[in-house]
Amino acid sequence: MQNLPDIALLLKNRAAEVERALSDALLPFSDEAAIARLQEAMGYALTGGGKRMRPFLVLETAALFGAEDRAMEAAIALEMIHAYSLVHDDLPAMDDAETRRGKPSVHKQYDEAIAILTGDALLTESFFVLTSYEGALCRELCRELSRAAGTHGMVGGQMMDLYPEGETEEHIIALQDRKTGALIECAAAMGALVGGASDEETAALRTYAKKLGLAFQIADDLLDVTQTAEEIGKPAGRDEEMGKATFVGLLGEDGARARLRQVNDEARAALGQVERDTSVLEALLDWQAGRTS
Amino acid sequence: MQNLPDIALLLKNRAAEVERALSDALLPFSDEAAIARLQEAMGYALTGGGKRMRPFLVLETAALFGAEDRAMEAAIALEMIHAYSLVHDDLPAMDDAETRRGKPSVHKQYDEAIAILTGDALLTESFFVLTSYEGALCRELCRELSRAAGTHGMVGGQMMDLYPEGETEEHIIALQDRKTGALIECAAAMGALVGGASDEETAALRTYAKKLGLAFQIADDLLDVTQTAEEIGKPAGRDEEMGKATFVGLLGEDGARARLRQVNDEARAALGQVERDTSVLEALLDWQAGRTS
Repeated sequence: MQNLPDIALLLKNRAAEVERALSDALLPFSDEAAIARLQEAMGYALTGGGKRMRPFLVLETAALFGAEDRAMEAAIALEMIHAYSLVHDDLPAMDDAETRRGKPSVHKQYDEAIAILTGDALLTESFFVLTSYEGALCRELCRELSRAAGTHGMVGGQMMDLYPEGETEEHIIALQDRKTGALIECAAAMGALVGGASDEETAALRTYAKKLGLAFQIADDLLDVTQTAEEIGKPAGRDEEMGKATFVGLLGEDGARARLRQVNDEARAALGQVERDTSVLEALLDWQAGRTS
Repeated sequence: MQNLPDIALLLKNRAAEVERALSDALLPFSDEAAIARLQEAMGYALTGGGKRMRPFLVLETAALFGAEDRAMEAAIALEMIHAYSLVHDDLPAMDDAETRRGKPSVHKQYDEAIAILTGDALLTESFFVLTSYEGALCRELCRELSRAAGTHGMVGGQMMDLYPEGETEEHIIALQDRKTGALIECAAAMGALVGGASDEETAALRTYAKKLGLAFQIADDLLDVTQTAEEIGKPAGRDEEMGKATFVGLLGEDGARARLRQVNDEARAALGQVERDTSVLEALLDWQAGRTS
């Protein structure tokens, strides 16, 4: 755990860089007042804080190959997808969440129509951002991102979450692999693509990220039952209230903690196959297991 | 007007090809019931009929350069964007339309959450479809489509429509250029890209499509006041009821008809600059001016 302070600082610094790049990507503001208002809402959705773990993972994976300077567009494209999914997820017809990270959600701050269009615009602009890469790389990144975010990835996971079919651990993992795991795996895959990683390195980094994503979800489930709303920045006990299948509900608190350790060990083992300086990605595992929000 | 029967048949044949390609693009169906249900809803949104004018224009523009065989992916990617926009537009928080082309809209046939996710999935898959092209072309097509559909294109136009700032003709044109014109211009631009058109040819084809899109909107406004609900397949007189600015409201019926003829002439003049066999694109103008639904 000796790396924990470092990773918190690294995350904070990267988050500041990412937020600057996200704000810049919205410019210039339109002369049309209605469009400028849409851009304002996009900015609100993009700059509400958060750990920026997905762009961090894109940047730090690319950094294994000395390519972090070329990875920011991939990082913000992915964060735009994440942000759009939160805006749509919070809508009354979906999770009906009035706050997000302690602030009014987009449809409360603006209105439902603006929230729908804000999500649509962020999703669309995400692919525009990727066209800053040259042809072959742009194509690979678009393919990776559209797969991770689409029907068989994140959106599919959201459908599974809304229309649950079972409460087995297998089913929760299948759901979480798509709903949150797909974008986190995508982060590592995009960093590897920008960095020009070998197939073996890419496969190992995907496994690492997939396990990290699962660990992240288990830790989130644990936080939902052990922390207060103020500590986690959103209503606590919400999962149980919504009747959602969680790792804690299925395995109990101790069982979930044991599973979290196991998944973390599997992630660490995958990193062992990458012959690069993976100390930051290792430290990210420790930080994530110990986080309190 | 002698070409009118031909274009109706060409449209019908192309629409059948496009619908087959759209259905194929959704396969295979997922083993997960919730995801298969999402795919079913995507199919419902994609195969509800319609004239398929946008994919027609992609295919026929590519055909000017003998490239229609390579244009189907671009055509269906664009139609997926159009379909997603209709699904989200029909939502209660937006236009609150219970029917679309005489059938229940997606949120009535399924529910609001599924409609939101169906739109999100169609938008995302659209960019996946474009990755079937080689790198440089994929990049150009992604750039074209994301621009036309995004903040300063279609979504921006929807914002202008929801939060009107003025009722001048200039404002309606600025709105329609984005809301419907951008995707129609994009159709011609994508066909030109696939066909490898010169910059001059592309510019002329863009102008043609922009004018065609404007003519289409004026004709739609005229149909809204002159046809019955049964004839146009959606509630009639809806624009006025919603308090939306229309060309008919602004110019009167006769004025709108005169403007339609003028815009059609401008489109024809643009085609005159393309030294290819543009007879199909010319016939499309006559057909559009004379359509009754």
